[in-house]
Amino acid sequence: MRNLTGLVFIVTLTVVLYSAAQPRESASVAPPKSELVAIRDAALSDDYAYRQVAHLADNIGPRPVGSAQAQAAVEYVAGELRQLGLEVQLEEVRVPHWIRGVETAELVEYPGQVPATHQKIVLTALGGSAPTSASGLTAEVVVVKSFEELKALGRGKVAGKIVLFNVVFDKQKASNGMAGEAYGEAVEYRAIGGRAAAELGAAACLVRSVGGADYRLPHTGWSLPAGIPAGAVTSEDAGLMARLASQGKVRMHLTLTSETGPDVVSYNVIGDLKGTEHPEQVVVVSGHLDSWDLGTGAIDDAAGVAVAMETAHLVRRLELHPKRTLRVIAWMDEENGGRGHDAYVKDHAAELENHVAAIESDLGAAHPLGFQAKINPDALPLLQPVQEVLQSFGANVIRLTTHSPGSDIAPLAKAGVPAFGVMQDIRTYFDYHHTAADTLDKIVPQELRENAAAVAVLADALANLPAPLPR
Amino acid sequence: MRNLTGLVFIVTLTVVLYSAAQPRESASVAPPKSELVAIRDAALSDDYAYRQVAHLADNIGPRPVGSAQAQAAVEYVAGELRQLGLEVQLEEVRVPHWIRGVETAELVEYPGQVPATHQKIVLTALGGSAPTSASGLTAEVVVVKSFEELKALGRGKVAGKIVLFNVVFDKQKASNGMAGEAYGEAVEYRAIGGRAAAELGAAACLVRSVGGADYRLPHTGWSLPAGIPAGAVTSEDAGLMARLASQGKVRMHLTLTSETGPDVVSYNVIGDLKGTEHPEQVVVVSGHLDSWDLGTGAIDDAAGVAVAMETAHLVRRLELHPKRTLRVIAWMDEENGGRGHDAYVKDHAAELENHVAAIESDLGAAHPLGFQAKINPDALPLLQPVQEVLQSFGANVIRLTTHSPGSDIAPLAKAGVPAFGVMQDIRTYFDYHHTAADTLDKIVPQELRENAAAVAVLADALANLPAPLPR
Repeated sequence: MRNLTGLVFIVTLTVVLYSAAQPRESASVAPPKSELVAIRDAALSDDYAYRQVAHLADNIGPRPVGSAQAQAAVEYVAGELRQLGLEVQLEEVRVPHWIRGVETAELVEYPGQVPATHQKIVLTALGGSAPTSASGLTAEVVVVKSFEELKALGRGKVAGKIVLFNVVFDKQKASNGMAGEAYGEAVEYRAIGGRAAAELGAAACLVRSVGGADYRLPHTGWSLPAGIPAGAVTSEDAGLMARLASQGKVRMHLTLTSETGPDVVSYNVIGDLKGTEHPEQVVVVSGHLDSWDLGTGAIDDAAGVAVAMETAHLVRRLELHPKRTLRVIAWMDEENGGRGHDAYVKDHAAELENHVAAIESDLGAAHPLGFQAKINPDALPLLQPVQEVLQSFGANVIRLTTHSPGSDIAPLAKAGVPAFGVMQDIRTYFDYHHTAADTLDKIVPQELRENAAAVAVLADALANLPAPLPR
Repeated sequence: MRNLTGLVFIVTLTVVLYSAAQPRESASVAPPKSELVAIRDAALSDDYAYRQVAHLADNIGPRPVGSAQAQAAVEYVAGELRQLGLEVQLEEVRVPHWIRGVETAELVEYPGQVPATHQKIVLTALGGSAPTSASGLTAEVVVVKSFEELKALGRGKVAGKIVLFNVVFDKQKASNGMAGEAYGEAVEYRAIGGRAAAELGAAACLVRSVGGADYRLPHTGWSLPAGIPAGAVTSEDAGLMARLASQGKVRMHLTLTSETGPDVVSYNVIGDLKGTEHPEQVVVVSGHLDSWDLGTGAIDDAAGVAVAMETAHLVRRLELHPKRTLRVIAWMDEENGGRGHDAYVKDHAAELENHVAAIESDLGAAHPLGFQAKINPDALPLLQPVQEVLQSFGANVIRLTTHSPGSDIAPLAKAGVPAFGVMQDIRTYFDYHHTAADTLDKIVPQELRENAAAVAVLADALANLPAPLPR
């Protein structure tokens, strides 16, 4: 899960909360609930998804767009889906190729400094960062807390300086169930802070890492290319610089030697389990295959891909035959620009009318509460059997949103396709998000199974409804 | 807080728990309780200690033994104590000078590896590590969970390999109030694992970081020099290697270019506030001034030094005149060998009889529950007024131990000096301990004040008792 476009959905959600607790009469729904129960129960005791995440994270490793590991992941997932009997296509996507380089920084002048020593600053480059020279740059640090404060300083006090946006992630909010909102408030600075700083002539732009835990761990992520070096320092280092700058002049030596190579050919992986009655009608189940490079991308988003794969696995294992086509998509380049979903809607423009629903999982692998859905409220009664089946493990909420509940399915949602995003418990998601600590151990196997169960039950139901959901 | 010697006290404590709740008749104790109450209340609203920690951590920064920052800290603390009117001595200590170098590692062969890629391993060198060559070494990784398992493998399967002790820190135990025990169980491998591996011909030794949080953060610390490179990998990386090694062969390229220079002259800082009646009798209040180099040593142990300094500050501010000498000691080299306390007991051998008590704070700056004490149980009634005064903020426990309740005062305790260690709430202490995340933000100002209050009240009481505590 990435950037401004992608996060609007978690910041502005909560339009209607619809609970399965209310009895409904209306729905004449296929498949029979017993099929959904069978899928749920199979998912809750299956380890297929976990094995997929383990392979992607442990054996393949970090999968930044344009890397050999991303390509290996494409081939691996395609092979696994073929083994399940799906019709697999690799659909070309030209992706950016941004390569992290040296990333070091140290304060070389500050109040109370011990002569001939410096304070190390822990940071990471943001995707889209321009490089410093190999020997780095040295400049004064200007600490601000908002765009307004930066503007008030003006070009005279910003030009040639390193701007630090010291915007604190609201941990209280995150632990109170509003992690998405906390993220949204802070990530704006990561996304467009560099541009704002560059417009005033800054030499470089740093942001306080957007995350909820303080373990000297920087959080990378997409930033709008602004022609200047852009990085994220840890919360500790941001705090240190703010304190020192309040005492006097602070100067930093900064080296960020990232490179941007030519675009690279990569792929969305598309695997179809053809529908028995309406093969032309498609239910998408998806996650994204690329990850940031610092960790191994277990929760962002090998988990989402694995859960989508498990839907196909369960349908095959239980020998079910959905009426409509189940399409597993492992998206490429969710993280650094979204070229994968852009290519998909372009290549499939003529078929979007036949996309009856799109499901995405891209908020980790913790316990799912249900789904966020950008759908016609008239569709809700048809989803009641899904909610009833998912109620046993507390995944029965369907929360209507006005924005896409996922960044890769956003173009589909925009085209009117009913769109669902798994609504995980994300209270700790942003502690690890886009860091080196996004690793397999962060996934609780049983919670991953719950995600697989939720997605598989919803997908199977949508693939078997008597008629597509009303748009 | 450091090593095997130093930790015995937290592993083997709990001999007697003595509570102030029991009414006692016996104690005819000076000073009047009103003086202790005044000290407590002054401490609980004072920011002297916090300002000291802030200067040591933020402005001076990491203070590894033998560094310019350690020397600057010596001079800074000496200057501050002189400002308080103390008689200050810098007492020479020859300290080791171990300098961290490049520290990188990557898996270059493992099951499922994508050709021409590797998995990065996050690690840090342990103090005492021997260096690899500048170009590093490459060897197979052998993962074991215990000394027994290593021995069972024998030289044939260990020689030339990189041994990884994958011993998991018991987080459950730590969160249940037994953090010291959890630490003790795991840190043994950090301390002497290298020696055990070297004895079987290993090329290098790695341990799983000894700590309670999983944020890809390595924990350094002292290790017994074993003539081979020794490092700590993060919990995530230890888990990754264990999983991969269970699938097949794992080979690592390891570069740890630490250097050990000649010993350096450094100092314990000794500041005396002379007693009005028994200037020859000494109550030590202390913390250690050196820190590891990864973080800024705020909780380990600028906090302890600052709390000791605050005792003198409060006595001066309140214009008190203790009968005995209050001696503030900022110890040097607690972390990498304990040369400071060794030098002290050697230099002061003739005066140890006149050390009536020694207090140390070296378990962070979280809420104090009271003290661990290696004292004669007959001394307990004399401490009742202290407990009564500290009860208002829950710092009134005195828990008798059979081992020294602190590593720097261990030689004093061994010589029979009544020894007290502040007993902080250490449930999260080992999440940050010896990592880059040991920084000022980890200290809650009010909790630091509580520590200052506890130490100052106890020290003042001990300095004014009618007679020294029975030994």
